[in-house]
Amino acid sequence: MKQATIIGSGLVGSLWAVYLTKAGYKVNVFERRTDMRKTIISAGKSINLAMSFRGWKALDEMEIGDEIRKIAIPMYGRTMHDLSGNKTYQPYGINDQAIWSVSRGDINCKLMDIAERTGNANISFNEECTGADLKNGIVYLKNTQTGKASEHKSDVVFATDGAFSALRYNAMQKLDRFDYSQKYIEDGYREILLPANADGSYKLEKNTLHIWPRGRFMLIALPNFDGSFTCTLFMPFDGHEHCFNNLTSKEKVNNFFKTVFPNFFEMMPNIADAWEDHPLSSLAIIRCFPWTHGKTALMGDAAHATVPFFGQGMNAGFEDCSVMHSLMKKHNHDWEKVFKDYEIMRKPNGDAVQDLSLLNYIVMRDKVADPTFLLQQKVERRMAELYPGNYFPMYSMVSFSEIEYHVALNKGKEQDEVVLNMIKKNNITQETPSNKLDELIHQFYGEKIKN
Amino acid sequence: MKQATIIGSGLVGSLWAVYLTKAGYKVNVFERRTDMRKTIISAGKSINLAMSFRGWKALDEMEIGDEIRKIAIPMYGRTMHDLSGNKTYQPYGINDQAIWSVSRGDINCKLMDIAERTGNANISFNEECTGADLKNGIVYLKNTQTGKASEHKSDVVFATDGAFSALRYNAMQKLDRFDYSQKYIEDGYREILLPANADGSYKLEKNTLHIWPRGRFMLIALPNFDGSFTCTLFMPFDGHEHCFNNLTSKEKVNNFFKTVFPNFFEMMPNIADAWEDHPLSSLAIIRCFPWTHGKTALMGDAAHATVPFFGQGMNAGFEDCSVMHSLMKKHNHDWEKVFKDYEIMRKPNGDAVQDLSLLNYIVMRDKVADPTFLLQQKVERRMAELYPGNYFPMYSMVSFSEIEYHVALNKGKEQDEVVLNMIKKNNITQETPSNKLDELIHQFYGEKIKN
Repeated sequence: MKQATIIGSGLVGSLWAVYLTKAGYKVNVFERRTDMRKTIISAGKSINLAMSFRGWKALDEMEIGDEIRKIAIPMYGRTMHDLSGNKTYQPYGINDQAIWSVSRGDINCKLMDIAERTGNANISFNEECTGADLKNGIVYLKNTQTGKASEHKSDVVFATDGAFSALRYNAMQKLDRFDYSQKYIEDGYREILLPANADGSYKLEKNTLHIWPRGRFMLIALPNFDGSFTCTLFMPFDGHEHCFNNLTSKEKVNNFFKTVFPNFFEMMPNIADAWEDHPLSSLAIIRCFPWTHGKTALMGDAAHATVPFFGQGMNAGFEDCSVMHSLMKKHNHDWEKVFKDYEIMRKPNGDAVQDLSLLNYIVMRDKVADPTFLLQQKVERRMAELYPGNYFPMYSMVSFSEIEYHVALNKGKEQDEVVLNMIKKNNITQETPSNKLDELIHQFYGEKIKN
Repeated sequence: MKQATIIGSGLVGSLWAVYLTKAGYKVNVFERRTDMRKTIISAGKSINLAMSFRGWKALDEMEIGDEIRKIAIPMYGRTMHDLSGNKTYQPYGINDQAIWSVSRGDINCKLMDIAERTGNANISFNEECTGADLKNGIVYLKNTQTGKASEHKSDVVFATDGAFSALRYNAMQKLDRFDYSQKYIEDGYREILLPANADGSYKLEKNTLHIWPRGRFMLIALPNFDGSFTCTLFMPFDGHEHCFNNLTSKEKVNNFFKTVFPNFFEMMPNIADAWEDHPLSSLAIIRCFPWTHGKTALMGDAAHATVPFFGQGMNAGFEDCSVMHSLMKKHNHDWEKVFKDYEIMRKPNGDAVQDLSLLNYIVMRDKVADPTFLLQQKVERRMAELYPGNYFPMYSMVSFSEIEYHVALNKGKEQDEVVLNMIKKNNITQETPSNKLDELIHQFYGEKIKN
């Protein structure tokens, strides 16, 4: 039986363990942290993620999608809250297309259970990766509780140990001609738990992603099963009127929320007390290349960590698993060939998902509150309805298809220009009658098809 | 007496030790390597560097310029060798402006001697930096020969340990919100020693930098005191007609030199035998920020390693010393203030010297063989002669002035456009009579001064 090693039992590592055991490998997973399944996660320590098409595709491929759907809440659109508490709703897609709110902790525990239940995956906890012999498939480990050093050799090694991958840091980054960059954005984030009502009901609509877009910063909220919402405030650390470094007292926190998020403050007047429940965290884009060397490959955040604004970090990591799996079958487990194809195919997508994430921060915090953007979205939704084969909105390409990220990014940019030009050329407004709008769209595609 | 620690006794570390001892510090320098003064450097193991204005300024500030000038050879211009062995000469500046060829080993040994001779600098060799407490000025060390671990605390710490700085890697790079990137260029380099004639005379003109520009690659030669030249071939590793990975046999090396550098091959028909004397090395641009944290600062390559094509790596590092020194005096040794100013002033210059270096590779390997570029240089040299206060060629700003690198870069780009436009608009050619050229230049500045 072939042996595989995985460093990190996070989301991607655990799912990849499922893939590999099903493909006939004996899998050893080494995780630096303690077993989170044996730790009581304190209320509100959960981070929420949005599962979309690519994530589901990988889970369904392993026939575990339905099990995960039980712990996921569909969000069919975004609800924007303005300063006066007025709400605007935008569907994410057509029909029942949705992105799904899942708790990182819940899905991670579930995926570890599923991996272990295959019988051929063993997860060892408290094992820190201190280095690796990339060519020979050896990882060097140190037990964080006993201090005991060990090494483990196998046929193939995968590093799924996240943005600050120890294997990458201690081995890959020391390779000659290894390109690497970590770039922090100006903004950080702090999580806030908005509890359920006393009767357990939700304080906001459940099946939507809530956004308080404020131009340079924003608050978002994703639903949990217990009626609470996990909220996240994204804002510059410093150098702006509203920034984390200005919120240095309870009074300042209260004033800030009263002023810029009044309807949120009404729901959570004790915000200042909950302010320190979660740490202030930073956000970085990490790029590197190559992603493979010898018998070792980087997957997920270890290869292409991104900022969270398109909700694609986990989805991109799960898609790495799908792609690696199909290449493994194509090349009949010849990992040298698999790795070569994998990094060439996936690197442009890793770069693109990062660019998309940065773009979508501006969409979420600013553009969704801009009438021109809302009009643009209305026009493009109608174009997609009338010419589904010709127009596919960028958001949908990213969230509801497996079109490669780099294709979605480039096509999306082109389309943006087309729609903006059409609006400008024909003086389209929100008041333009729908039959007139349809006529303009038919005219545009009529000409395009003729040419 | 205040204590300072320097990690790395390379060029910048040794010079900075001189500055600090003269400013009244007791300085401990820790160097990972053995003492190069006690090792016989095998022939041809020397790397040559080009000292220009900024380097000399720093050395003269410490009154050691004359001592270094004794081991430096002035190069007043560049000599281009074409395929037929024809030569073109371009002066670097006006009058006796020159850049100076120095052996890295020679100048490093000399600077270490000078630092130690002050009586207040001690260099400990074989001491590897394994980590640091940046806030408290503690460095953690391990002796590479005895394995003994130790720590050393002082009032202020400087990391001058080069592109792959151990202090940066083991401490700075682990800081939250530390931006970092290492980007390798497609090209590598291999050194070749062109020996002197049997009678000790030079095989090429001594006081010039020789270039064999070949578009995508180039060979250069810098003079040594013993009549030899240190030559360097810069070329892509792979993926091009001429690349290192194609030169896999002595025959291929011989054919390559015969074909693309025939006059060099005539001087060195045993090139294939010497081919493996030096390793094939890679070239990277390393950017990071911040450059300081707590009591610790990065200087030289540790902060802004560049590719060597403008010959400014050492000069920029020496200028770091000049600037840090003047800020130290300005802020009366209040290092918190010094560091804040230092990184804000120097970061744009670190970025610019890297951009300039990348630009100058294209100039050296390609443009210097292009008639349009030579014409452009002729026109700009005349503009600088006629309007010295108004026109300062980019090469001169970088090499013969202390104008900030980022100013030189931006001003240089603007000027390039001005000259190209003037050439185009007035159909200037190499045949344009000099009085006509002067007239056009006077006309241009006349109009400019009027406006």
